[in-house]
This record gives sequence, C-alpha cells and structure tokens, in this order.
Amino acid sequence: MKVLLVYAHPEPTSLTHHLMKVAADELTAQGHQVRESDLYGMSWKAVFDGLDFPKRVNPERLSFIEESGHAYANDCQTDDVKHEQDKLLWADAIILGFPLWWFSMPAIMKGWIDRVWAFGLAYGYQGAGNKYRYGEGGFAGKRILLAVTVGGPEVDYAPRGINGPLEQLLFPITHGTLFFSGMQVLPTFAAYGAVRVDEARVEEVTKAWRQRVAGLFEEQPMAFRWQNGGDYPDGHTLAAHILPKKQGIEVHIAAS
Amino acid sequence: MKVLLVYAHPEPTSLTHHLMKVAADELTAQGHQVRESDLYGMSWKAVFDGLDFPKRVNPERLSFIEESGHAYANDCQTDDVKHEQDKLLWADAIILGFPLWWFSMPAIMKGWIDRVWAFGLAYGYQGAGNKYRYGEGGFAGKRILLAVTVGGPEVDYAPRGINGPLEQLLFPITHGTLFFSGMQVLPTFAAYGAVRVDEARVEEVTKAWRQRVAGLFEEQPMAFRWQNGGDYPDGHTLAAHILPKKQGIEVHIAAS
Repeated sequence: MKVLLVYAHPEPTSLTHHLMKVAADELTAQGHQVRESDLYGMSWKAVFDGLDFPKRVNPERLSFIEESGHAYANDCQTDDVKHEQDKLLWADAIILGFPLWWFSMPAIMKGWIDRVWAFGLAYGYQGAGNKYRYGEGGFAGKRILLAVTVGGPEVDYAPRGINGPLEQLLFPITHGTLFFSGMQVLPTFAAYGAVRVDEARVEEVTKAWRQRVAGLFEEQPMAFRWQNGGDYPDGHTLAAHILPKKQGIEVHIAAS
Repeated sequence: MKVLLVYAHPEPTSLTHHLMKVAADELTAQGHQVRESDLYGMSWKAVFDGLDFPKRVNPERLSFIEESGHAYANDCQTDDVKHEQDKLLWADAIILGFPLWWFSMPAIMKGWIDRVWAFGLAYGYQGAGNKYRYGEGGFAGKRILLAVTVGGPEVDYAPRGINGPLEQLLFPITHGTLFFSGMQVLPTFAAYGAVRVDEARVEEVTKAWRQRVAGLFEEQPMAFRWQNGGDYPDGHTLAAHILPKKQGIEVHIAAS
C-alpha cells in the first residue's frame, strides 16, 4: 500500500522526526511505499492568501471559496498545493506527525490544511455544496492517523483532566477536517510528557508507536457518524431518536 | 479603557474587516483607546522556527520551550514578537476577529499565538511550571472576545448539529489558549452563513455586533473553572465531588 507522512517540526532530533523515521522504516520493511511531506524542511508557505490564486476569477474582491473552487476546477492552483494534493490522492493512508501547540497543530501544518484542502476536493465536493461530507468526499476511503507529541502529563488529558480529553480537543481536526473530507480517522497516537524524554521513555514510546504503525491498515477507525448513513435525515441535525437526551460533539461518535 | 483588535483576513471588504471597523468606531466613540494588529496587513510571520531565536541558549538542538523561555527572560526575542506582547500587555481587552477555517483560526493567527504566547509569559509563568494557568498567568485580568465569521449555517453548529456546537469546537482556543494564560473569555460572537451576505444581513449582524462591543467591559465571562480556585485540588484533575458522573471538556465550565 501507499503511505504519506506529513510532519511539522524543524528539529531533526525531535521526537516528531524520530516517530516519522520509525514509521518510514516499519512501513518500508512491510513492503509499503512511503512518501513524505516534511513541512519545515520544504519551507511550506503557511499563509493562505491572494498569492494562492495566480488566475483570479474576481480580481476585485478575494473570496477564498470562490477562488479555491475556480483554481481547483480550472487547474490553475499553485504548484506546491497541486503537488500535495497529488500526494494525498496517491496515498492509501496518511500519517500526520506534529507537536501539540496550544491544543492544536503548529501554524505551518494548519496552513497546509488551509491551502491544500481545496473547494471541490475537500469540501464542496462535486460542486454539490455540503452533500458529500463527513465520511464521503474527495479523500474518501483513505485512512489517517495522528501522531502527536504532547509536552504536558497524561493526567491533564484524562476524562476529568484540566485540559480536557485529547481526543475531544482534536475533534475539530479529526472530525471537522479529516473525516469531513471523507477520510477514516484512527484513534490518535499520543506521546505525553514529551518535553524531556530519556532513552528508556523513547524506547517505550517507540515500541508503542511501532505497534500502531504495524496496524495502520487493520485497526478500526473512530466511529464518527456518516452524514449520509441515515443518522442525519436532513444532513444537518442528528436524528431525534439517537441519544435523545445528549448533545455536543460526543453524539457524533456512534460508540458514545 | 484600552482595546486591542487582532484580525486575520486579507480582503478589505470582508465581513471580518467590517466587524473590526465597527468595533473600532464604537469603542472610540465610547472614549476607549484602540490599537490594531492586522495580521495580513502586517505580513505577520506565521511559522514558529529557529529564526525566532537570534540568540540561542542551545545552538545544537532547537527546543521551543527552552529557547522561548530564554529569549523572553533575556530580552532577546524578535522585535515583531516583542511588539505584539507589548500591545497585549497594554490592553485591558482584546478582540480576535477571524473567519472559521476548518473549525479553527487561519494559520496566520495560529502563528501569532504560537510565536507571541511565550514561555514565562503565557505559559510557565514566573518560572513556576504549571502553577499559574487557567485563570492566572501573564495575561490575567484582561478580557477577550472572539468575533468569528462562519461560512456554514447556524443549524450545523446547534447542540445536535453535525459540526458540533461552535463553543465546543473553539474550546482549545478559548479555554486552552486564552483562559490558560489568564484571560477572561467572553462568549463567542459568531456571524453564520457568511459566504454570501446581502445588505440586510450585514445590517442585522452589525447591529448584534455593536451591542456585544458596547458590553465588552460589562458582560459576564464564560464560567471556566480556575485551576487555583479550589476545583482542582491537585492542579490536574477536577475534584471528585464536582459533577461526579460527568467527564469531557464540559465539566470545566462551572455552569454546566
């Protein structure tokens, strides 16, 4: 199978780079093909702006949705964006490796999403508005796994920990960005206490990570509800009979 | 009072710019002082990297926490970062204006957080690890209000809407970034359906926004629980007697 590693840390000796190297080695040893997007190494342009649209449909007023849709449909996106989309479309699975900064991804990776997740591909799929989203869309069928290094201790991310549970903090990414565009999202791999890690801890993390990588194509994705699977009769609101007394992000996970 | 407006949209005729202009006019008319950080207009450097640390404590290996702490403590941060911190420390209240991209802020604003929220100021306050966070810290006492323009319809962000409730999606920002560093966070102002807005809708949004701006110093902040207010006896986990059967991000809001 084909796997794309996308990662965001400038330090070659960082835990993020280490995890990506382990993944590349493990996957290659298993016979998979591996490609990489080292965002810092590529000096990825993080800021989504007018330079993304060399041929504007409306030179007077910049609408990102309008210009993104036009550029994607008419093959006039910038080369760097096109190249990343090609890599994503090539891949059967994607791994995103990043340090958790302010309970989200570093700006350089957010900018990779902002720019590469084009209208017509990752949203507004097939010019059909919001018809194909959450389980369907331009990246349908691909698996994705987040590998997150976390400075703080795991207890702070426990069900009643002060930061909130990691998987809930990542919901705008896992559900709102990745599953939205059709990807099947695996449970997040997190390495906690990553500020200072000694050799024993690196070994422990590496072992756990290697197992997750080995199961990349077998593991069960998170049970996010498909928009068109019957749970959202009007495409907007969860059916009244499902978890009738509950609300909030949790209701969009079938196991909850 | 003193108010800082920080916003992230490159289009001068965007709804984001309109809301910021309305806020500046309203606040000035009320006798407040207003300063602005127009992140696109300033060509803000979004990517947090080695260039942020002209005088490295460790030239061999880049640790962001270590270098950020050293640069902040020894007055060797870059001028742009220092300038933004000065503006924040000057302000009694801050308004963040941005379009919701993938259920979060645009990369350029995330990069403003990544770079300006220094160790020793916004986290690791007073060199005391995590002792002062969530309600206390370098930005304690300041009020902050998010003004978010949202492309999709409000129904998708309802308590059982398919995207999840907006305030939960923004929790990593409001709770994990702003309240973390000591700010008092007001309920988010959201303008939904912002892709195509006609004049009547702009008028409606403007009216609602003007009211929120007028109440900037009176409105009740969200009831996030203070780390050192008694609800987290060990500074990590919510006390067992509080909402004993509940878990997840919701338990960190006192009203819930």
